[in-house]
Amino acid sequence: MTKVKDIGEQGLLARLQRFCPQEIIGDDAAVLVTTPGQSLVVTTDVLVDDVHFSNVTTSPEDAGWRAAAANLSDLAAMGASPLGIAVGLGLPGDVSVSWVERLYQGMTECLQRYNTPIVGGDIVRSPVTTLSITAFGQADPSRIIRRSAAQVGDAIVITGIHGASRAGLELLLHPEIGQNVKDAEKTALITAHQRPQPRLDVLPILWKILDSQSKISVAGMDSSDGLADAIVQICRASGVGAIVEAKKISLPVAFEHWLTEEQALNYTLYGGEDFELVLCLPTDAASALVEKLGRGAAIIGTIISGTKVLLHDEKAEIPDQVLTLSQGFQHFGQ
Amino acid sequence: MTKVKDIGEQGLLARLQRFCPQEIIGDDAAVLVTTPGQSLVVTTDVLVDDVHFSNVTTSPEDAGWRAAAANLSDLAAMGASPLGIAVGLGLPGDVSVSWVERLYQGMTECLQRYNTPIVGGDIVRSPVTTLSITAFGQADPSRIIRRSAAQVGDAIVITGIHGASRAGLELLLHPEIGQNVKDAEKTALITAHQRPQPRLDVLPILWKILDSQSKISVAGMDSSDGLADAIVQICRASGVGAIVEAKKISLPVAFEHWLTEEQALNYTLYGGEDFELVLCLPTDAASALVEKLGRGAAIIGTIISGTKVLLHDEKAEIPDQVLTLSQGFQHFGQ
Repeated sequence: MTKVKDIGEQGLLARLQRFCPQEIIGDDAAVLVTTPGQSLVVTTDVLVDDVHFSNVTTSPEDAGWRAAAANLSDLAAMGASPLGIAVGLGLPGDVSVSWVERLYQGMTECLQRYNTPIVGGDIVRSPVTTLSITAFGQADPSRIIRRSAAQVGDAIVITGIHGASRAGLELLLHPEIGQNVKDAEKTALITAHQRPQPRLDVLPILWKILDSQSKISVAGMDSSDGLADAIVQICRASGVGAIVEAKKISLPVAFEHWLTEEQALNYTLYGGEDFELVLCLPTDAASALVEKLGRGAAIIGTIISGTKVLLHDEKAEIPDQVLTLSQGFQHFGQ
Repeated sequence: MTKVKDIGEQGLLARLQRFCPQEIIGDDAAVLVTTPGQSLVVTTDVLVDDVHFSNVTTSPEDAGWRAAAANLSDLAAMGASPLGIAVGLGLPGDVSVSWVERLYQGMTECLQRYNTPIVGGDIVRSPVTTLSITAFGQADPSRIIRRSAAQVGDAIVITGIHGASRAGLELLLHPEIGQNVKDAEKTALITAHQRPQPRLDVLPILWKILDSQSKISVAGMDSSDGLADAIVQICRASGVGAIVEAKKISLPVAFEHWLTEEQALNYTLYGGEDFELVLCLPTDAASALVEKLGRGAAIIGTIISGTKVLLHDEKAEIPDQVLTLSQGFQHFGQ
């Protein structure tokens, strides 16, 4: 099997050029055309082998897809359309060339759905496989979605189902679990983990609804670190509180036959990596948006004054819970 | 000494926020304003501990400065003004927080000279310290400097002295050498290695000269991988040849008392990391540019038809040499 050290940096770059548009190759930097009047939006993620991805649960194609999707999701969360991504890759010499090509294949499969080119990057030798992606997009300055813009009275919208990615990961790590789950449902959960969909499709729908209303600002972020985390982050940044209705949050169908109510809610609120959007906007616009989106999209609560972020269950015997930031995403603590 | 693992990712991010403009913190991505009609220019570099930098020759401040300078140099080489950089950082848990702060201090010192903000990034745990920088700039689409635009008859301009960075590195690695070199000259060579200056200052001077002339296109790149490498790359991309006059290339003063003529020429042509610009443009404009730049700037040769890139020495007994791409930058070969 051909290894990276057999063909060197230049040889590898030559093999990977087929994943990039022809016109951007061969200068010190890539040149992109932007739309006048739009702001530039930039986001970076670094992924390290055995910390952020693993060959046990993730093929190189899936690692590539997930890395691209996470960055596109950050752009969607800002209200930005993607322009391109730059890829920085650190590789041990004994990684196979085919592993790298499959990684790029996965990135490209995701990016092509959103007409987003890989506009270059850098490949270097490293003792550990490291993937650094910087995505850039553009947004109408008056339409940028910020965490800090939530207002008392806003409805809290989620754009899809939460908990599926985490459940898919558990099924990959422990194939013996989920005996009661149908194969098709298992596959759907695993796909949710391996091939998450950044919700760039939400933006044109949202802009169309807002165009008919005057000067509405939308607050929001993506739910990459968990649904609860997103709600708490938005509330902190906006200096507001929230009340979330547990029963309004749609769960993956498979959860019913498999998980206890507590486990199901835990995956849904804290699972992470569903890459949906959590948006805060006035109720009328929120209702119109949810109706257009369908499939798990819902108004799940309301922004209130104060600083508490509460989860309310309709069952009288269950007391309100305080939502917290996701645990488990502190990668340094060992 | 406080280590990264003691304060975690969030703690470290909080400490590093003072190096970033306040308004860009706390969303999924950073937002930057661009000038209408300008193209976006993007470049990425990945630097790995013990491959691209080493505590032996490089303090964390210098590693940060050099990383920032290399990326700004790529923008200068495209004719672009910087808008910002995104920093992706992979860190072992036992790196000291002060090392990271000093790295950011060095980056910031370089960037501030060019009014360029750090617009966010990502910090993650990694078994090896890895620094990935993506720089963004903007350029007038009609003024983008490409490698492929050199034309037969163009003068080849270098914007400053070459070989100093390599000589500085040798002095750091082998303090016992260079006995005949004065201390001030040693310091100057070492500074050239540790604190290279990206030549963004050349651009306004170049545009002023070109404004008075009609439709001149400039070809070029930076000399980060060596002066010979830059000339050969431009010629390959443009489908032309070149003849370079050895005596026109200014050497660092210290070389005279220290290196043989062959060593001096070797450092100058193949040393790398001087981060000057190599530009090809019509002779009149080239002369005007060199006069304005001073300090080592020179017309060193001419673009000719064919594909040969020759170094001509005025001494009759020395035959013409064929210039080649830099060796020693193939990092995978072990």
